[in-house]
Amino acid sequence: MLMAATRNHRWLVADDTSASNLKSSSIDPKLEQATIAFGQPNAEQLLSLRNLRWIHLTSAGYTAYDREDLRSHLRSLETRLTTSSAVYAEPCAQHVLGMMMAFARQLPYAHQTQMTERDWPAAKRREESFLLNGQTVLLCGYGEIAKRLVELLAPFRMKLIGARRNPTGKESIPIIPIQQIDTYLPMADHVINLLPANDSTVGFFDALRLGRLRSDAYFYNIGRGATVDQSALSGHLYAGRIAGAYLDVMTPEPLPPNDFLWNAPNCFLTPHTAGGFRGEMIRLVEHFLENLSRFAHEQPLRNQVI
Amino acid sequence: MLMAATRNHRWLVADDTSASNLKSSSIDPKLEQATIAFGQPNAEQLLSLRNLRWIHLTSAGYTAYDREDLRSHLRSLETRLTTSSAVYAEPCAQHVLGMMMAFARQLPYAHQTQMTERDWPAAKRREESFLLNGQTVLLCGYGEIAKRLVELLAPFRMKLIGARRNPTGKESIPIIPIQQIDTYLPMADHVINLLPANDSTVGFFDALRLGRLRSDAYFYNIGRGATVDQSALSGHLYAGRIAGAYLDVMTPEPLPPNDFLWNAPNCFLTPHTAGGFRGEMIRLVEHFLENLSRFAHEQPLRNQVI
Repeated sequence: MLMAATRNHRWLVADDTSASNLKSSSIDPKLEQATIAFGQPNAEQLLSLRNLRWIHLTSAGYTAYDREDLRSHLRSLETRLTTSSAVYAEPCAQHVLGMMMAFARQLPYAHQTQMTERDWPAAKRREESFLLNGQTVLLCGYGEIAKRLVELLAPFRMKLIGARRNPTGKESIPIIPIQQIDTYLPMADHVINLLPANDSTVGFFDALRLGRLRSDAYFYNIGRGATVDQSALSGHLYAGRIAGAYLDVMTPEPLPPNDFLWNAPNCFLTPHTAGGFRGEMIRLVEHFLENLSRFAHEQPLRNQVI
Repeated sequence: MLMAATRNHRWLVADDTSASNLKSSSIDPKLEQATIAFGQPNAEQLLSLRNLRWIHLTSAGYTAYDREDLRSHLRSLETRLTTSSAVYAEPCAQHVLGMMMAFARQLPYAHQTQMTERDWPAAKRREESFLLNGQTVLLCGYGEIAKRLVELLAPFRMKLIGARRNPTGKESIPIIPIQQIDTYLPMADHVINLLPANDSTVGFFDALRLGRLRSDAYFYNIGRGATVDQSALSGHLYAGRIAGAYLDVMTPEPLPPNDFLWNAPNCFLTPHTAGGFRGEMIRLVEHFLENLSRFAHEQPLRNQVI
């Protein structure tokens, strides 16, 4: 599909294609001849390249490329950097909703019962189940995933608050500057961490900040593992100071089998699958081709970050 | 709350209040003096009562009352029967959505991993995850739960088809007469059984009908256990002839620990909790009081079935 749609272009295929689109590829001399890079080119190597006009990443995040030296290098050459965040907004938003519904309907607890004693605690589970309606959600990070999640949550009539670095005033829900988040954390029934990993977000959810969550609040992470102090989170869960946590991203990944989080009370983990779905590769290619057409016609690119 | 709002009425409290609102109460002589019954009065006893003007059930279903002798008795006296289905539409619809999202995002499988080997099958799980968008849902039964589920599913842009005994033509999605369901079963990615239990629905999903589901389809039951041939379902699951099942209702309940369903592949059970939520009792009372006010003002009652 990719080859067929780009017959007018010359293709250079990297020798070492990374198995994960979360890891940079290694340095590849072929990249020196390219004008467009599609994948996860090595960030260090990009600093020395002058022919690239456009880099399209196959990931939603761009942590490895989010550094000042690379930003200024690319800007000086007018080289653009785009991501595939449009591809991942839908599965990630559905993943978060799935996690929220799992807690609301107590599904993991029923599953634990099924895998162990097979009893029938109907009355207890019914009392512990809750409706999302009217509850408050704090979205930490307000990009494509958050926007789609807002649409999915619309029928539940929840109170939605977004937090981002630079509110535009044009968002469809109330937005606070992320610097004010400490004031809003105690209001939330659901705190959803969608933050990317960069210098300003590493360890963002530290012990103090997690301490501002209510004891009946749920914490979710589908941003990046590095933005959460996991031992603090683990401590909060073991002490029952929050109601539960559902994490799709952790540090490190894979999470070692002896990590406390695996067994922390009311803590549920998915192995960095929030963005995954049948047909993911085809959608990645479609998204690239759409941007390629925009690039060829000198139209604004989608998901441009630099 | 109930007493305060009904100070003008005389209250008779049943001696034997059933622990479950799925079971009829036993015969109670006090009922002979009542003009309104709120709860689960004994259906046999109702046949001999002539003073009752209105019966308000605390359940969404009314299986025990859905019999011709009682229908004609109540009709001849102009006694009305209402249910609490408005109370249960929201939690039940959310429960189904939670089950659908759990399959789509492969959450129970991640949980199994967490409870056992603690490995990290990210690539496999990502490929097995899927988006709900564009998939087809067949709603078997089209009452309050189905209508609310249609609202919750709206942002996913799925293809929704409802099946009911008597389509009105005024439904918000395409509706087929339930007699034609066999034609539509092979089209569905998700078959959602919302049928009540009555003479015409017992064993509705038998081996033949379940055999019409596609091998990549999911089956859900939050109607009543009796509408499904569980050994047939179990057989289909063990043989991998359907992708999975999520059941909230079973026969019998509690499901005995040695039942095959507990361990059937891709089969997940919740202990009849779909309608449960914090505040359920308060909502039941509110719903009754709303109908009581309508009753007093001779307005049409909500959720009237007889």
